Amino acid sequence: MADAERKLNNGKSRIDFQTGPSHYRHWKLAVDGDVATLTMDVDEKGTLFEGYELKLNSYDLGVDIELADAIERLRFEHPQVKVILLRSGKPRVFCAGANIRMLAGATHAHKVNFCKFTNETRNGIEDASENSGLGTICVINGTAAGGGYELALAADHIMLIDDGSSAVSLPELPLLAVLPGTGGLTRVTDKRKVRRDHADVFCTTEEGVKGKRAVDWRLVDEVVPGSKLEETVKKRAQEFAVRSNRPAATKGIALTALTRKRTEIAVEYSTLVVEFARPERLATITVRAPEAAPPASADAMVGEGAQFWPLRLARELDDAILDIRANEYDVAAIVFKSSGDPAQVVAYDQFLDANKDHWLAREIRGLWKRVLKRVDLTSRSLVALIEPGSCFAGTLAELVFATDRSYMLIGNLAGDNKPPATLTLASANFGAYPMSNGLSRLASRFLADPAQLDAAKAEIGKPLDAERAAELGLVTFALDDIDWEDEIRVFLEERASFSPDGLTGLEANLRFGGPETMESKIFARLTAWQNWIFQRPNAVGEEGALKRYGTGQKPVFDTRRV
Amino acid sequence: MADAERKLNNGKSRIDFQTGPSHYRHWKLAVDGDVATLTMDVDEKGTLFEGYELKLNSYDLGVDIELADAIERLRFEHPQVKVILLRSGKPRVFCAGANIRMLAGATHAHKVNFCKFTNETRNGIEDASENSGLGTICVINGTAAGGGYELALAADHIMLIDDGSSAVSLPELPLLAVLPGTGGLTRVTDKRKVRRDHADVFCTTEEGVKGKRAVDWRLVDEVVPGSKLEETVKKRAQEFAVRSNRPAATKGIALTALTRKRTEIAVEYSTLVVEFARPERLATITVRAPEAAPPASADAMVGEGAQFWPLRLARELDDAILDIRANEYDVAAIVFKSSGDPAQVVAYDQFLDANKDHWLAREIRGLWKRVLKRVDLTSRSLVALIEPGSCFAGTLAELVFATDRSYMLIGNLAGDNKPPATLTLASANFGAYPMSNGLSRLASRFLADPAQLDAAKAEIGKPLDAERAAELGLVTFALDDIDWEDEIRVFLEERASFSPDGLTGLEANLRFGGPETMESKIFARLTAWQNWIFQRPNAVGEEGALKRYGTGQKPVFDTRRV
Repeated sequence: MADAERKLNNGKSRIDFQTGPSHYRHWKLAVDGDVATLTMDVDEKGTLFEGYELKLNSYDLGVDIELADAIERLRFEHPQVKVILLRSGKPRVFCAGANIRMLAGATHAHKVNFCKFTNETRNGIEDASENSGLGTICVINGTAAGGGYELALAADHIMLIDDGSSAVSLPELPLLAVLPGTGGLTRVTDKRKVRRDHADVFCTTEEGVKGKRAVDWRLVDEVVPGSKLEETVKKRAQEFAVRSNRPAATKGIALTALTRKRTEIAVEYSTLVVEFARPERLATITVRAPEAAPPASADAMVGEGAQFWPLRLARELDDAILDIRANEYDVAAIVFKSSGDPAQVVAYDQFLDANKDHWLAREIRGLWKRVLKRVDLTSRSLVALIEPGSCFAGTLAELVFATDRSYMLIGNLAGDNKPPATLTLASANFGAYPMSNGLSRLASRFLADPAQLDAAKAEIGKPLDAERAAELGLVTFALDDIDWEDEIRVFLEERASFSPDGLTGLEANLRFGGPETMESKIFARLTAWQNWIFQRPNAVGEEGALKRYGTGQKPVFDTRRV
Repeated sequence: MADAERKLNNGKSRIDFQTGPSHYRHWKLAVDGDVATLTMDVDEKGTLFEGYELKLNSYDLGVDIELADAIERLRFEHPQVKVILLRSGKPRVFCAGANIRMLAGATHAHKVNFCKFTNETRNGIEDASENSGLGTICVINGTAAGGGYELALAADHIMLIDDGSSAVSLPELPLLAVLPGTGGLTRVTDKRKVRRDHADVFCTTEEGVKGKRAVDWRLVDEVVPGSKLEETVKKRAQEFAVRSNRPAATKGIALTALTRKRTEIAVEYSTLVVEFARPERLATITVRAPEAAPPASADAMVGEGAQFWPLRLARELDDAILDIRANEYDVAAIVFKSSGDPAQVVAYDQFLDANKDHWLAREIRGLWKRVLKRVDLTSRSLVALIEPGSCFAGTLAELVFATDRSYMLIGNLAGDNKPPATLTLASANFGAYPMSNGLSRLASRFLADPAQLDAAKAEIGKPLDAERAAELGLVTFALDDIDWEDEIRVFLEERASFSPDGLTGLEANLRFGGPETMESKIFARLTAWQNWIFQRPNAVGEEGALKRYGTGQKPVFDTRRV
């Protein structure tokens, strides 16, 4: 169930993360040369769930799914675009943030999941700028409140109209007794480096800050009189375009609709299958190696477009993970398996390495990086089973390193003649896919001893058997066929018996050792505080601020400071 | 109230953080040359609250107050001690961790506050090693479970007896559906750098890990057969002592009992007063400048002992903060004021600078650092009011920089002839007192522009008036007497009207911009997750694991993963 307490609109039974411009109800995407304008013009009636309206450009998960889709399309379908202008299609309001009635009525699980996805989308906007030369300028022509200002914070440059009334604000605390949940506090302190006492004033001032003070306090980059707004926007767009390293006048590829066949217990994609064992609270994702060799050239890769295997798998895996997160709350653990020829997987990695300066190869590696981060941040136990006939090599081996635990079979299972399991490292495992802490999964794994990282590096390209993989520290356990089934069954049963919340907290702490980045602070620290507050009666109780908002009744607080 | 739902033992009405070796019920402190042995031997009946017993060396806040006291005394009273041996006085058990019945019956507020203090104590053990050359060796001769192993994790070196049964464990998740709440997960990943999959296995294995695997997985530093234990302990103690930079054969000073006079609405210490305005939910702490000049020499400082003003104030301020935290949950904001001659404060800072290599000066600066960190981590809004006659200079100015907001009066209030307010910087403001993020408060404040930090540095020693202080960015607002009272009243009323939890989360995020350390990860990330879990029905509901522990009934979990 997407949200135990609420019905999806239009009779849907699952939240669907796939969309496309022709289906957008809330955003308009217009491309003009190297400048794209992404206009937020939310359809009040176009809600994901029943029971609220999206007034004043407020948003729910459905609105954000379109935004995330638009950013991906700009990356793949419009490689010549160098600047995104983020604007509002409504007069006097940029965006009022997450819809409050939606939040007030949502389950805790949906609130948490909603914030996670919106965070990933905003990180994606920043990633497009940092790693793909696709900068974003946010043009605030009206009010940008709460999540509206948080969206602006994801941009490289924030312009605010100087009309005596337009302001930016984070009114969550004074208005709703919750925190800005989409990275706002962390971006205020760590990205915009607003002085902490200014941040305190800003975040406790319902009406926000406007004009010169907004610039002085570093909340926006410039304020512009209405009469000069359009010409200044144009000028800034040109300045950003000049700095971009995106290719000029290149044709993109179409992100065609995914192939998905859903039954009650499985979803069949073209490169993977998800199988649900609901009584055991498991989802098993089996990814398949490509059947054909990589194309002969970068042009041929472009010709394959969205069918190019690494791109197809990344998109399908992303969809599968999002589907489990949003629609299968009872799944305790995701088990990763693979099947096919690891040599083919390695060949594709080598192809991407060889073409790493090609815009499409760069985008595909970037997408894989984001999908793998999405896996890292999925609050389900992650397990890899490396069995005979599997193909965990290179990029696919990252799935093993993303798990909480991995099991690898020594030799064969009785009566099975598939080739014994191997694990193969590629150069992609040593930097192409940093986690949100800024390190590769292997570097995070071997924090204690960099020599182990070097030892692993020396094995690039060699198919490692279970005992060797365990010796190198690449898998948790290497087991023979006598122990295999029982050990794994007992482990998975045990996992399903533990407290779901306890596991979420445990995994969130154990997965990210070592350094911190703004991104890891957002997910690990801000999110945890927000989740805490999302449970507190002062916010979500019957007399809490979130429940009483708009009723005319004041919230009643337990005054104890904790 | 210390804990709305529970009675303190022995008819006490407040938790008292002051104690001393002659009052210890749970620890024995024995000093032999340069080695101190701190033996945990918890008195089952010596609980802080009614309703539980402290079996198997389990602990409550009362046990930890004694531990914190013992560490402080080793720093000040026994400067010649170079190594602490942390041991158990019970057979076959080192420590069973935080008492579960105590936790199960405690209010959320007490649980959070308890974990915060125990975290500060363990950080204090590490700080003694890092900054005072006072290393700790933990000798585990039995079971070290949960908080017991977390205590061991604070040591520099962990020895585990190899007797076939003694193990270390973090069984919180499988047993109680909560997280190890005293830094355990963070120290496992970031201090001991245990591989994440090993950490996953370890933290989900109720019985823990023993013997060789405990060493291989980096959970302990060595396992030692029982027959060789005592000689190995002796050897390790000597090795640590040799590496210490503590002074040889120096006599310490006695940490004499604090002077405190409590009435219903105030606590009078020798260097400060705390006044409670409970209807307004405020506590005002007014610190007083010293009345006499600093002593003539380091020897004279030693002669003054615990009466030496900077030490006296640090200890009294620490006690005042802890008292508010544990006994005055309804206080929304702590207001810092000061009175006296700032030149005297500066003189003491110069004295400490001039004697910075003296062991006592080093300990006093270290204590101030920890007390100021305690202020940073106090979940109450922090406010400084800088008024005529105040003495916020040098070390005392750190209190201003620790606040969420500061207000400084321009000129005088009508009818008042005290000297106009000044703020004076000293070199101590630029590195002597790092926050838990590793930066000075001013460096944290000026993250956006290091030039502002340099500009402030250039003003060292000059009494800055309100307008100049505001211009330099050292205070939030400089107000004249027309606005002063109203602005502050409105602000404090507003603060008391906000959601207490929302403010806690907001302040925890805004206070610590910039880099992260293991310490900041523990407080900001692990703590937030733990607080979340401490609210979840799976842990604390009537059918939750914490409530059902020991009843023979299994917990019932909401299976949704969030």
